[in-house]
Amino acid sequence: MRSDKPLYINPRVIDAEYAVRGLIPSRADEIKADLAGGRGSYPFESLVYCNIGNPQSLGQMPLTFFRQVMALVDAPFLQEDAEIVARLPADAVSRAREYLAQIGTGTGAYSDSFGYQFARAAVAAHINERDHGVGPAATVGDICLTDGASGGAKIFLQLLVSGASDAVMIPIPQYPLYSAQIALLGGVKAPYYMREAERWGMKASDLVASYERCVAESGATPRMLVCINPGNPTGSVLERCVMEDVLRFCHEHGMLLLADEVYQENVYEAGRKFVSFREVLLGMPAPYCAETMLVSLHSTSKGVIGECGRRGGYFCMTNLPGALREQVVKLCSINICANVNGQVMTALMCSPPREGDASYALYRREYDAIFNGLKERAALLARELGAVRGLSCQPVEGAMYAFPKIELPAGYSERNEELNAKEGRRLALDARWALELLESSGVVVVPGSGFGQEPGTLHFRTTILPPHEQMERVVRAIREFQERIYKRYASGDE
Amino acid sequence: MRSDKPLYINPRVIDAEYAVRGLIPSRADEIKADLAGGRGSYPFESLVYCNIGNPQSLGQMPLTFFRQVMALVDAPFLQEDAEIVARLPADAVSRAREYLAQIGTGTGAYSDSFGYQFARAAVAAHINERDHGVGPAATVGDICLTDGASGGAKIFLQLLVSGASDAVMIPIPQYPLYSAQIALLGGVKAPYYMREAERWGMKASDLVASYERCVAESGATPRMLVCINPGNPTGSVLERCVMEDVLRFCHEHGMLLLADEVYQENVYEAGRKFVSFREVLLGMPAPYCAETMLVSLHSTSKGVIGECGRRGGYFCMTNLPGALREQVVKLCSINICANVNGQVMTALMCSPPREGDASYALYRREYDAIFNGLKERAALLARELGAVRGLSCQPVEGAMYAFPKIELPAGYSERNEELNAKEGRRLALDARWALELLESSGVVVVPGSGFGQEPGTLHFRTTILPPHEQMERVVRAIREFQERIYKRYASGDE
Repeated sequence: MRSDKPLYINPRVIDAEYAVRGLIPSRADEIKADLAGGRGSYPFESLVYCNIGNPQSLGQMPLTFFRQVMALVDAPFLQEDAEIVARLPADAVSRAREYLAQIGTGTGAYSDSFGYQFARAAVAAHINERDHGVGPAATVGDICLTDGASGGAKIFLQLLVSGASDAVMIPIPQYPLYSAQIALLGGVKAPYYMREAERWGMKASDLVASYERCVAESGATPRMLVCINPGNPTGSVLERCVMEDVLRFCHEHGMLLLADEVYQENVYEAGRKFVSFREVLLGMPAPYCAETMLVSLHSTSKGVIGECGRRGGYFCMTNLPGALREQVVKLCSINICANVNGQVMTALMCSPPREGDASYALYRREYDAIFNGLKERAALLARELGAVRGLSCQPVEGAMYAFPKIELPAGYSERNEELNAKEGRRLALDARWALELLESSGVVVVPGSGFGQEPGTLHFRTTILPPHEQMERVVRAIREFQERIYKRYASGDE
Repeated sequence: MRSDKPLYINPRVIDAEYAVRGLIPSRADEIKADLAGGRGSYPFESLVYCNIGNPQSLGQMPLTFFRQVMALVDAPFLQEDAEIVARLPADAVSRAREYLAQIGTGTGAYSDSFGYQFARAAVAAHINERDHGVGPAATVGDICLTDGASGGAKIFLQLLVSGASDAVMIPIPQYPLYSAQIALLGGVKAPYYMREAERWGMKASDLVASYERCVAESGATPRMLVCINPGNPTGSVLERCVMEDVLRFCHEHGMLLLADEVYQENVYEAGRKFVSFREVLLGMPAPYCAETMLVSLHSTSKGVIGECGRRGGYFCMTNLPGALREQVVKLCSINICANVNGQVMTALMCSPPREGDASYALYRREYDAIFNGLKERAALLARELGAVRGLSCQPVEGAMYAFPKIELPAGYSERNEELNAKEGRRLALDARWALELLESSGVVVVPGSGFGQEPGTLHFRTTILPPHEQMERVVRAIREFQERIYKRYASGDE
C-alpha cells in the first residue's frame, strides 16, 4: 500500500481473538514446516495436535455408509453403472436414489436458503424421535441447514447484537467462537462462570448475578444466553433441573437461549445422559413451554461421525416470533445456502442405517468402535492428567476435551514476566506454559486464557482425540514438563 | 416469546436487503408450493426461475471429470476397488490419488484456515498462467479458499468497515451481497453509477465525484472500492484503460480494490476479453504495481463449471501489508476453514484436463457445449428483449444476466401508487412490475431496485440460464406482459 497513507483496520477485528487456531497452533505450524524442511532442532520428530476437535485429522475413520451415499449423490453416473452398483450395499444405492429424486437437478445447484426440504425433514424427524415426541413436533420450517454449527451461531448473534448496547451471556470457560463473534459485532460479553469444583456445573443464581453485573457495569441489555451442553471446553453434561432453571431465567428476561448441542452424542460418564434443551423446554408447564425462545445448534463435525470437512450443521427454532423468523430467513438468503455436500451429510447423520438394513451391522460396528474409543480415552485422560504434579482434572463426562487446572510455582510466573518484558509482549502465563510445552515436546494444546477462566486460575484444553499411543505420549510429555518446572522453580517452595 | 417483553432485533439486520432471494422469489416459492399442492388458480403450470445465477438448477450438466475426481476423493474406498477403477478414466483416478496423498487423512477433516496447500497451489498456478506471468508470481500464501466468493467478500468488508465512519464505493447497479453486508456492518454505501448508454461502462471521473460526494454528505471515509467485472447485473466487460484508471484512483486514496471476478470465464462478445485486475495492476509502472492493494475474488459457482452447490471459491491478495494479512488470517481462523468439498472443486476448476489427458476430449466437448449455449442465449436475450415495446437492452458482453431498462406508461405508475396505498406497502414500481409478471406468467425476475439504479429509471435482471425452449417462453411472457400494460395504460399517450 502507499506508504504515505495510514493503514486502516476495523478495530473490532483487531479485538477479536480465536485461540483454538491462535498463537500456539500457529507456532506449531511453523515447527511442522521446520520439521518437514529439515530446519531447526527440536527434541521430537513430529507434533501431536490436541488443539482442535478434528477427529479425522487424527486417524478417526469416516462411517462407510455415509460416504457411500455421499459419493453416489455427488456423482450420479456411478449409480447408472450396474457393475459399480453391484459392488455397493443396496441401502446405500437406494438412499442415494431417494435423495437425488428429492434434490432433482443434483448437488451442483444452490438449494433453498434454509436447505433442501428432504434434508430438513430428516433433521426434524430425528429431533422429534430424539426428544421422545414431547410438545408440538419440530417441522421443516423450524430447521435451517448451515455451514457447521458456527454458521447458525453467527446468524443469531448478528440478529441480536448491533453494538455496545447489546450483551450476550456466555459461559466461562467458553468456546471462543462466541467471544470472537461478539467482539466483531461490537457487543458486550456478560460472562457467567462454570463451577469447576462441581464438575464444571452451572447454577441459576450465577446467571442472575451475571445479568445484574452486566447491566450495572456496561449498561448493555443481555439479549441472548449461550449454553454449551455437553460443555466445550469443560466436558460437563447438564442435568435437567439446571436446564429448567436456565430456561426459566431466559423466559423471565425475554432472552433467547442459544443451545450449542454439537456434542450431544458425546456423553461417556455412567449416569449422565444428554437431554436436549428442546425436550426440557417442551416438557415444562406454560408459559415456559410456549414462550421461551430457543435456538438449538448441531453439526456433522463432532459426535461419532466427525465429518468436520463437510462443514455441515443445522439450527432448530422453538418459539421464535414471526418477526424474528422473517429476519432469519433474510439473513440466510444473503448467505444463499449452506454447501450441499454438508446438507447431504447432515441428512445422513440424522437418518443412519437402522436394524434390518443391509449396512446396519457395519455401521453399528464402526460407530461402537469410535464411540468406545472416545469413551476410554476420556476416562484415561482425566485420570492420568489428574495424577500429574500440579494438575487437577474434572471428569470428562462428555464432549471431546479435558480442561485441567494448572498450578505453577511462583518462580515460573516471575520468569514469564521477565521474558515478556524482554520479548516486548504480554503472553498470559498459561500461554507461556503451552508454548514451552509445545517447543519442548511437540504437543499442541490451547491455554485456558483462550477460553476464559476464573481470574487467578490457569488451565489448558486438550482434545481426547489422539489415538492411544499418541495419547500416552501426550500424557508423558505433560508429566515430564510439569516435573521439570517444579524441579527448577519450586525447589524452595516445598 | 413473552408477550410483555418487547422484541429486540438488530436494526442493521432490518435494514439489510437481498432482492435476489427477496420479495419476488419468495412469492414465486409460494406459487410453486400452490402449484405442487393443486391450490390457487394460475394461468401457467410451472415457473421459470430467472432470478439467480444457478445454472445446474436449470438443467446445466456438471463437468464429468470434476465429479469423478470429487467422488473418488470423498469416498477413497472406491479407488481401492480395481473393478470400479477400471470403469473410470485413468486421469481421474490418478488425480484423485494425487489429491488424497496431499490431503492425507481425507476430506472429513478441517483443513488449515486458508485451505489445503495443494488446492491453493493449483489456484496460484492457474492465476500465474492466466495473467501471463506478469509481475511477482502469486504464491500459496496469497491465496485463501472460501465458501463461495461471498465468503471472501464478507471477510474484507468486515476488515475495513466498523460502522458509520467507514464507506465502501460500490457500482450501481451492483450485486446486492455488497449493499447487504455494508448494511449489516453499519457502514456507508458510496455509489458510483455505471453508464448504461455506454454499454454499462464506467468512468474514472465518476469515481472522483462519488468519493467527494460521500465524504461531503456522510463524513465517512471510503475504505474500499468494489468492482464487478464482468458486471453483475450489467453484463459489461471492462477495458484495460478503464481498469488502470480505477487502480490509480484506488492508489491515490489508499483504498483497497475488491475485484469480484467470478464471471471471468463468461465473456461472449466478440472483441471483448477478460483481463484480471491483477494482470493490469502488475503491468503498471511503480508505484502502482507495488503498492495498490488488491483482493480478487473467484468462485466455482459461475463460469462454465456452474458448481453453486459446492460453495467453493477463493481470494487472492496482492500488495496487502503484513498487518492487514495478519487480521485476515485471524478472521479466517475464526471461520475454521472452507468446506473441503468446495476446496477440491476449486482446485479442479483451476487445473482441468489438458490436451493429451484421457479426459480431455470429453471435457472439451462438455465445456464448449455449455459455453456456446450461454453465448448464444446472451445474444438472443439481449436482441429479443431489446425488441419488446418499452424495453431497451444493452449487449450482454459477459456474466450471466441481462439488465434491460423498462419504460412504462404513466398510468401504470399511478396505479402502483393506488395499490400501495390500498395494500399499505411501498412496493417500488419495478417490483410491482416483476410481481405482476410473475403472477401472470410464472417468470421470476428481480426488479432493478434490488440492485440500485439511476433515480427515475426502471430495470429488471434476468439470467441467461434457462434452456432454449424456456428462454422463448420468458421472452414471449415479457413481450405479452408489456403489450398488455401499454394497451391498458397508454392508450391516451400514443
